[in-house]
Amino acid sequence: MRRRKKPGSKEKLLSYEDYLCKEPEKYKGRWKDYFHEEKLIHVELGTGRGQFITTLAEMNPHICYIGIEIKEEVLLRAVEKAVDKGLKNICFLWCDINKIHDIFDKNELSRIYINFCDPWPKKRWVQRRLTHRNFLEKYKYILGENGDVHFKTDNEKLFEFSLNELSYENFRLNNITFDLHHSETNDGITTEYEDKFSALGMKIYRCEGVKRN
Amino acid sequence: MRRRKKPGSKEKLLSYEDYLCKEPEKYKGRWKDYFHEEKLIHVELGTGRGQFITTLAEMNPHICYIGIEIKEEVLLRAVEKAVDKGLKNICFLWCDINKIHDIFDKNELSRIYINFCDPWPKKRWVQRRLTHRNFLEKYKYILGENGDVHFKTDNEKLFEFSLNELSYENFRLNNITFDLHHSETNDGITTEYEDKFSALGMKIYRCEGVKRN
Repeated sequence: MRRRKKPGSKEKLLSYEDYLCKEPEKYKGRWKDYFHEEKLIHVELGTGRGQFITTLAEMNPHICYIGIEIKEEVLLRAVEKAVDKGLKNICFLWCDINKIHDIFDKNELSRIYINFCDPWPKKRWVQRRLTHRNFLEKYKYILGENGDVHFKTDNEKLFEFSLNELSYENFRLNNITFDLHHSETNDGITTEYEDKFSALGMKIYRCEGVKRN
Repeated sequence: MRRRKKPGSKEKLLSYEDYLCKEPEKYKGRWKDYFHEEKLIHVELGTGRGQFITTLAEMNPHICYIGIEIKEEVLLRAVEKAVDKGLKNICFLWCDINKIHDIFDKNELSRIYINFCDPWPKKRWVQRRLTHRNFLEKYKYILGENGDVHFKTDNEKLFEFSLNELSYENFRLNNITFDLHHSETNDGITTEYEDKFSALGMKIYRCEGVKRN
């Protein structure tokens, strides 16, 4: 589906200076300064319309959240949710996930969420999948001791691929489930996409990968 | 399905002295003496009618195979296959898998195959599943360095459970596939049960778990 550009989205997004960090590279290695807090930092890659990360931020004031998204129209919706909730422990980055190495330093994060990322089904696109070993190498670098990746998808082939990649990169796999919404491990914190597809009866796959030291 | 006891199965089985090891406890720690060979030892737990293990034994004369099965009628069929093929690198044990600690010593095996074991679906039966952590602990003890467990099932819930248990027990997961018969990792070596259910279009799940040292 072609994405529709709403006129004015970019300007509106840029106006939310308290929530949008415009020069994230400046905070590499010192995100705790950005938040003025010595808290754990959790990042969502591809934060979309923000239901998932803003729900978490509201529930967990002791954690700082960073949502990364490249599409300004959807990111604007996420920022507006954070504004509406008056959250103080969240910020958003309007940038490409490929740049995470320029944005976060070694051991800086404690968790990375990846929810319903593009499955890039063709073989020639394999390296674009956010759970490809090249990405996982980057995550391992920026995750601290016992840091973890929490991954959800509705795509069975991508899930199979991701389990193998996580294991190959020496993550410890936890709470693997093939049907999250009928599982004991379901915490009920969902994305907009997840609500829609789960309501249609589609299965949601989930796992956690913990970095080994 | 109730199993039908064929009259005479037991006597016939016991008559195959070259293939049935009647006192396996005696060989604990010295299975290489039993085979008169310094070869790797691979074991199949629940060997059924023996198509899988006898095919492997025929293809890999450099490996010794041991098939364990508690049902004498099906074990007889497995033994007869080995006899027909004139295999020299295989033997069978008519016993309960719960006894493997009495049969194999520390580090004695290099691989354990578990194919289409009983899923024991109810929660109160969880400890009977052959991939339960209690069993995996035993396998880790009798597997040598880099020894591995190769697991196949057509039961999705059992597969999900088994991935979690293997990971919990610190096995490295390799070649996880949710649809073996449409996967690049398929080696075409099947069990009788697998042929039947795969022909009906049922998916076969498979993974390998490598013991970490």
